[in-house]
Amino acid sequence: MSATLRELQRPGALAGLKVLDLSRFIAGPHCAMVLADLGAEVTKVERTRGGDDTRAFAPMVEDESVYFMVFNRNKHSLTLNFRDARGQELLRQLIGRADVLVENFRPGTMEQMGCDWQTLHRLNPRLIMARISGYGQSGSIASEPCFDALAQASTGLMDMTGQPDGPPTMCGTYVVDYCTALYATIGILSALAHRQQAGEGQLVDVSLMGSAVSLLMTAIPEQMLFGRTTTRRGNRDRYAAPAQMFKTRDGAWLYLIAGGDAHFPRLVRVMERPDLLEDPRFATLKARMDNVTAIEAIVAGWVGEHDSDEIISKTRAVDLPCAKVASIADLVANPYMRETAHITTVVHPKAGGIPMQGLPIRLSESPASIRNSAPMLGADTEVVLKNWLGFSDSQVAQLRSQGIV
Amino acid sequence: MSATLRELQRPGALAGLKVLDLSRFIAGPHCAMVLADLGAEVTKVERTRGGDDTRAFAPMVEDESVYFMVFNRNKHSLTLNFRDARGQELLRQLIGRADVLVENFRPGTMEQMGCDWQTLHRLNPRLIMARISGYGQSGSIASEPCFDALAQASTGLMDMTGQPDGPPTMCGTYVVDYCTALYATIGILSALAHRQQAGEGQLVDVSLMGSAVSLLMTAIPEQMLFGRTTTRRGNRDRYAAPAQMFKTRDGAWLYLIAGGDAHFPRLVRVMERPDLLEDPRFATLKARMDNVTAIEAIVAGWVGEHDSDEIISKTRAVDLPCAKVASIADLVANPYMRETAHITTVVHPKAGGIPMQGLPIRLSESPASIRNSAPMLGADTEVVLKNWLGFSDSQVAQLRSQGIV
Repeated sequence: MSATLRELQRPGALAGLKVLDLSRFIAGPHCAMVLADLGAEVTKVERTRGGDDTRAFAPMVEDESVYFMVFNRNKHSLTLNFRDARGQELLRQLIGRADVLVENFRPGTMEQMGCDWQTLHRLNPRLIMARISGYGQSGSIASEPCFDALAQASTGLMDMTGQPDGPPTMCGTYVVDYCTALYATIGILSALAHRQQAGEGQLVDVSLMGSAVSLLMTAIPEQMLFGRTTTRRGNRDRYAAPAQMFKTRDGAWLYLIAGGDAHFPRLVRVMERPDLLEDPRFATLKARMDNVTAIEAIVAGWVGEHDSDEIISKTRAVDLPCAKVASIADLVANPYMRETAHITTVVHPKAGGIPMQGLPIRLSESPASIRNSAPMLGADTEVVLKNWLGFSDSQVAQLRSQGIV
Repeated sequence: MSATLRELQRPGALAGLKVLDLSRFIAGPHCAMVLADLGAEVTKVERTRGGDDTRAFAPMVEDESVYFMVFNRNKHSLTLNFRDARGQELLRQLIGRADVLVENFRPGTMEQMGCDWQTLHRLNPRLIMARISGYGQSGSIASEPCFDALAQASTGLMDMTGQPDGPPTMCGTYVVDYCTALYATIGILSALAHRQQAGEGQLVDVSLMGSAVSLLMTAIPEQMLFGRTTTRRGNRDRYAAPAQMFKTRDGAWLYLIAGGDAHFPRLVRVMERPDLLEDPRFATLKARMDNVTAIEAIVAGWVGEHDSDEIISKTRAVDLPCAKVASIADLVANPYMRETAHITTVVHPKAGGIPMQGLPIRLSESPASIRNSAPMLGADTEVVLKNWLGFSDSQVAQLRSQGIV
C-alpha cells in the first residue's frame, strides 16, 4: 500500500469537528477549507439561488469555477433560503448541532436573521462562532464595506509595496484575505482548546484591517517613535544590505541575499573582491545599510557580467541564498513542487482533474488530506438534513418544494 | 474596573501550555508570539552569546531592537550554549517538560544537537514539535538556504507583484514569513486537538515554499489547464472590473471597487452615467473584464475631475467600497486603529513604551492579552531552570560559571 493511501486512512487532526461555513469569497472559505483539509466535517451553507458569488467567477472548466474550487475543496454543500424565516429557523437548528460556525457577512446581517451571538450561545453553549469582517464586529466604522484591496490601501501595505519611483502597488495576491483566514483559523482552534477545559464555546472576531496591520513589521514604531515613514523601496530589503534583485548577463532576474555579517563575506569570496571587506563603507551591516546604493551598484555590475546558471552554482557552493525570479510557468515546471505535494491534483466530478496548491501543513500522526473536490451547489443538502437533524425523505421534499432549501 | 483590566485577569485560551521557542528571525518567532498572546507560557531559548540575531537589528531604542520587540513580546528568555554537549543535554531536559517546541534551524541542525524527532518523541511522547524551514524537512533541496524574499522569488509571487511595465516586485512586507508563522500555529493547535484525543504529540512540518505556493489563488490551475501565466498587473483586480487605483483631482490615490454586478450600478449612479449600464461593453462582469482598459479609462477620467473627499462621501452614500491609499503616517493618525487596539503600546523595561501592532484575534471568553514586552537576553534563565527542572541556586550558578547557560 502506498504511503498516500495509508495516510488517507488515518483520521485527520480535526476529525469529528462539525463546521458550518456560511462565508463567501476568500477569507471565510479559506479558513473553513483549512479546517476541512485538517479533517473537520465542513458543510458550506449557500443561498438557494446561485450559491457563493464566486461560483460565477472565471475561469471556468465545464462551467465550474476554478476560483470556487480552489477555496472550497473537502466541503459539503447545503442550500438554504436565508431570507425566509423558516430557512433561518432551519439554520438555527443546524447551528444547534455544530461545533464551529464561520461567517463573513457584513456585521448586523446575522442579527437580522435571528442569529446573533446571544441567541446562538444560548441555543448551543459549546458553539464557537467565528466572525470575519472588514473592520471588526463593533466600532464606529464596522458597517462599512471592505475587501482585501481596501485593507491593503488603508493600512499602508499598498504604499509600502512597489518601486520607489512608481505608484503604490498591491501585492500580487490577496495577502490580507489569506492572513485573515489564517488568524480566524487560529482563533477557532484556540477557542477549541479553551472549550476542552471550560466546556463552553465563544465568539471569535477577526477583521481584514486588524490582520493587515499585524503584518507591518517595524513600520508602526518607526513612525510613532522616530517620525520615519516606511514606504515602498522596490526589491531592496529593509533590514540588511545587499539583499536585492539583480539582472544577469543572460537577462534573468536573480534575488540575492548577502546582507548579514555571516553572508556578506561569502558574496565577497564569490565575487573575488576581498577588498570590499576592508572598505569602511561595507565592513559592517550598519555601514552597508548607510551605503546601500554603492554596494548594490557594485553587486549589480558583477551580476550583469555573469550568466544566471553560473551565479547560482557559485552562490550555492558557498551556501549563499540566491534564486531566480520564477514565473508561474517556471513554478509548475519545478519538480520539487510535485515531489512535496505543494502542487496537487484534485478531481472534480464534473470538471475533472484540477491542479492546485496543497495545504502547507504536514502532520506526522494525523495528516491533513485532500479527500474531495469542491461540492456542486446543494449536493449534500439531503444528507446533511438527514444526518444532522434526522429529517425524513418527506420532510426534505417538503422543504424543497417550499423553496426553503 | 476597566474592561481591559478585567480581561487581563481572565486566563487566555492557551493558558498552561508550555512552549519552547528555539527560533530566530520572523516565521518561528511570530508563531510562538501568537501562542504567547493567546496565553501560552513561551520561553525563548537563545544562544548565550548575543541571542537571536535580530537583537542586533536596527532600529534601536536605548540599544534594544524594535524589530526583536515586535516579534517576541510576551515571551521569557533563557540562554543556553547549543554547541556544548551539556547545553544540549539541558535542552533535552527542558523539552522533556514542554508541550510544544518551535524551531526554524536549517534541517539537520536539531539532529546534530541530539534533538532529532525520534529521540524527542521517545523522551516526551506528548511533545508537539513544530519545524519551520525553507523547503520542508525532507526532499532533494531541504538543506538549501531560504528566506522570505527567495520564496517570493521562486514561487511566482514576485513575478505577480508590480506594475505591468516594471520589474517583478516584492510585497512590501514579509508575507511569506508571516503566513508560514500562521500555518505553523495552525499545525500546532491541530496537533494539540489530536493530542487531546489520542494522548500523543507529533511532528509539524511547515515550509516557506509551501506557504508561499498556498497563496497563489487560481494561478496554478490557470497555468496548467490553460497555459495562461498569471503575472503582475499593477493595481488592477484579477477577477472583477473596474477595481483599480485612481488619482483624484487633488492628487490623492483612491482604491475603488466596483467590479461586481452588485457594485457597478452604484458606481454608475455616483458618476451619473446611466448610459454605461446600457453599453454592451460594460453591461456584465464578463464584458467589463473584456473591456477593462476602456472602463478604467472612463472611471479614471471621472475620478480625476473630483476631489478625494467628495468621492469618498459619494461612494459611502451608496455603499461602494472606496478608500484613500494611506501612508503609515496616515495609518497611525487614524483613531480607529487605537479604538480597536490594532495599534497598542507595550512597555519595555529598558526602552519604555513601544507602539506596535496588536494580535488581530478577539476571543470573547478567553481573550488574548499583551502582558509583557520582549524579554532581555537571558532574563528568565534562572526562574525557568528552577520552575521547570527544580534546579537549586548552586546548580544554576554552576551552569552559569561553566558557560552552559
